Amino acid sequence: MVGAGVIGLAIAWRLAGARLQVALVDPHPGAGASDVAAGMLAPVTEVTFGEDALTRLTLASAARYPTFVAELEAASGVQVGYRRSGSLTVALDRDDLAVLERLRTYLEERHLGVERLSASQARRREPLLAPETSGALFAPDDHVVDPRLLVRALREACIRAGVAEVSAAATRVLIEGGRASGVELEGGGCVAAPVTVVAAGAHSAELTAGVEEMPVRPVKGQLLVLRTAGGVPLLQQTVRGLAHGFSAYMVPRGDGRLVVGATVEERGFDVSVTAEAVYSLLRDARRLVPAVDELELVEWRAASRPGTPDNAPLLGEAAVPGLVWATGHYRNGILLTPLTADVIAELVVHGRIADIAAPFVSARFARGKVRS
Amino acid sequence: MVGAGVIGLAIAWRLAGARLQVALVDPHPGAGASDVAAGMLAPVTEVTFGEDALTRLTLASAARYPTFVAELEAASGVQVGYRRSGSLTVALDRDDLAVLERLRTYLEERHLGVERLSASQARRREPLLAPETSGALFAPDDHVVDPRLLVRALREACIRAGVAEVSAAATRVLIEGGRASGVELEGGGCVAAPVTVVAAGAHSAELTAGVEEMPVRPVKGQLLVLRTAGGVPLLQQTVRGLAHGFSAYMVPRGDGRLVVGATVEERGFDVSVTAEAVYSLLRDARRLVPAVDELELVEWRAASRPGTPDNAPLLGEAAVPGLVWATGHYRNGILLTPLTADVIAELVVHGRIADIAAPFVSARFARGKVRS
Repeated sequence: MVGAGVIGLAIAWRLAGARLQVALVDPHPGAGASDVAAGMLAPVTEVTFGEDALTRLTLASAARYPTFVAELEAASGVQVGYRRSGSLTVALDRDDLAVLERLRTYLEERHLGVERLSASQARRREPLLAPETSGALFAPDDHVVDPRLLVRALREACIRAGVAEVSAAATRVLIEGGRASGVELEGGGCVAAPVTVVAAGAHSAELTAGVEEMPVRPVKGQLLVLRTAGGVPLLQQTVRGLAHGFSAYMVPRGDGRLVVGATVEERGFDVSVTAEAVYSLLRDARRLVPAVDELELVEWRAASRPGTPDNAPLLGEAAVPGLVWATGHYRNGILLTPLTADVIAELVVHGRIADIAAPFVSARFARGKVRS
Repeated sequence: MVGAGVIGLAIAWRLAGARLQVALVDPHPGAGASDVAAGMLAPVTEVTFGEDALTRLTLASAARYPTFVAELEAASGVQVGYRRSGSLTVALDRDDLAVLERLRTYLEERHLGVERLSASQARRREPLLAPETSGALFAPDDHVVDPRLLVRALREACIRAGVAEVSAAATRVLIEGGRASGVELEGGGCVAAPVTVVAAGAHSAELTAGVEEMPVRPVKGQLLVLRTAGGVPLLQQTVRGLAHGFSAYMVPRGDGRLVVGATVEERGFDVSVTAEAVYSLLRDARRLVPAVDELELVEWRAASRPGTPDNAPLLGEAAVPGLVWATGHYRNGILLTPLTADVIAELVVHGRIADIAAPFVSARFARGKVRS
């Protein structure tokens, strides 16, 4: 196992639960894209037009969340901040309203429960919405989890299940007799294994360079954390804005923190927090909820998400035997964690890929088939 | 001496140089408003309409800077980043141009050297100015210093000169036989002294509550520090914007950092960094110099400046014998440091107040005379 983000940790936990020996290689567990996630579990609002297979995947993973969280909290003794609060997508101007209507139609055609709210209904749900609010879409099935707590819980569960954490950077997947035989570690040494699961996020492609080329690239994301002075949450649920180039959203935590995310930028492995991103995020947030102005800015972060040409994950066996992909989760890593863990564990233990994951195997990116 | 900001430190250094015994009381030297200053020495551009006495004071202090810096650097072995780079005040729209013309007229009437630049002349000085730049005023005599280095140099010079740093918070000025006799320390204890200089910035008034009431209040300021990726400065000199409610300016440091300041807010002793301030500072900065967008945001800070009803400092003897004021420097603390140190040292050693400082004695705020 390479990569101790939420994906790698959850797979390791499931594999250890199936009584396999697991070594999880990562110099900084939970420090990548998992740490720069708001924790929105929004299969409904984040639906991608025309990507029904991906929507089925995200909905299936969202459906597993309650059981996943219950099991994980019991196994780890750590609460992960899972809240079924719904999300509110807010329209300000006429263009926003048109987008809102298209989204509603698309969702209703797929029997995804959403509720169209007037401006006053929306403000009844969130009194601090901007006066220009012209309407909203409430998605009761969009929930939220705290990604840092999720990492903490998964690490604890892994330790209790006997997973060995290897605190080193993997440099490449090793091949022996035509099979993946483990990974080489920075500074020498290696971890040998009959099966190597690559869950190294945006760094996954580097590990298999020359072995199997996969089009996984870094997609930069930046977010801010604000906080109310008294610790009382400013919002009751996730509030999202429309368009403006950014996908602006605000996710309240119970302690008064408010996560404002997130940019989507093609910048390679750059993880600096830029003036432009901070400006844009604050501009969009205060446009939706002017009271944001009064909040204290307490944290900013940037990370590289693992993107693929079709924005969908890369799951299942590689062409090279003994190598398994679990990456490319792009903006859906937290949401897809439960399902990915189950799918990959089933693949490693029983050798079969679940039907729902079949569209996301690596064969779709094989030479000559790469969509870009 | 109470207060080890730049003012207190510089006075202590001068007094120790005059062979007086000095104890400097501050739990966190240099951590107040001195640490949330850009270090603009801008007596010309920062001139306050109608406040000629204050302008004389700031110009006199600016004139002492070269000697002050040379002496301080020699005494401490620490370079303070003093650069005679001038400042550029940039007009974007027609309203800005009108303000620029008024400022130019006012400055020229007072024989303060400024140069009116066309848009293309301004861009020759600073190629990254916004395309909307319509004109600028170049003030060659506005310089810059790095306040953190200034604090470091002053502390080192104080230590070498034998000043005793007392690392504790002063709670109040003590009175004995109708004279100030020193200060009480938090947690018990006191420092006794024949003369007590209060240079505690925004906290100065608290120390003399019940002894002598002075209208010194906290005026919140927030600033940001950005940084270029390669360490090459984005700007060659201080660039300032006009109006917009904020006094926006950008001060480049030699290492690629760019200080963006500063808000002026009446918020009591609140020193949280707010979303609104960060947004406004970035908005103004990127409006003046769009390339700011690419910079990394590396630091934010807020502090309480010591404000007075006439925005001018409070210098000289109090009504209570043995008590001396050196506070109320508002937005001019760094600039007024050399002159304040000389004036107060002369007062303590020789018992006379320099003519130039006479308009700023505490008598102007005596009961019934407080302007607000």
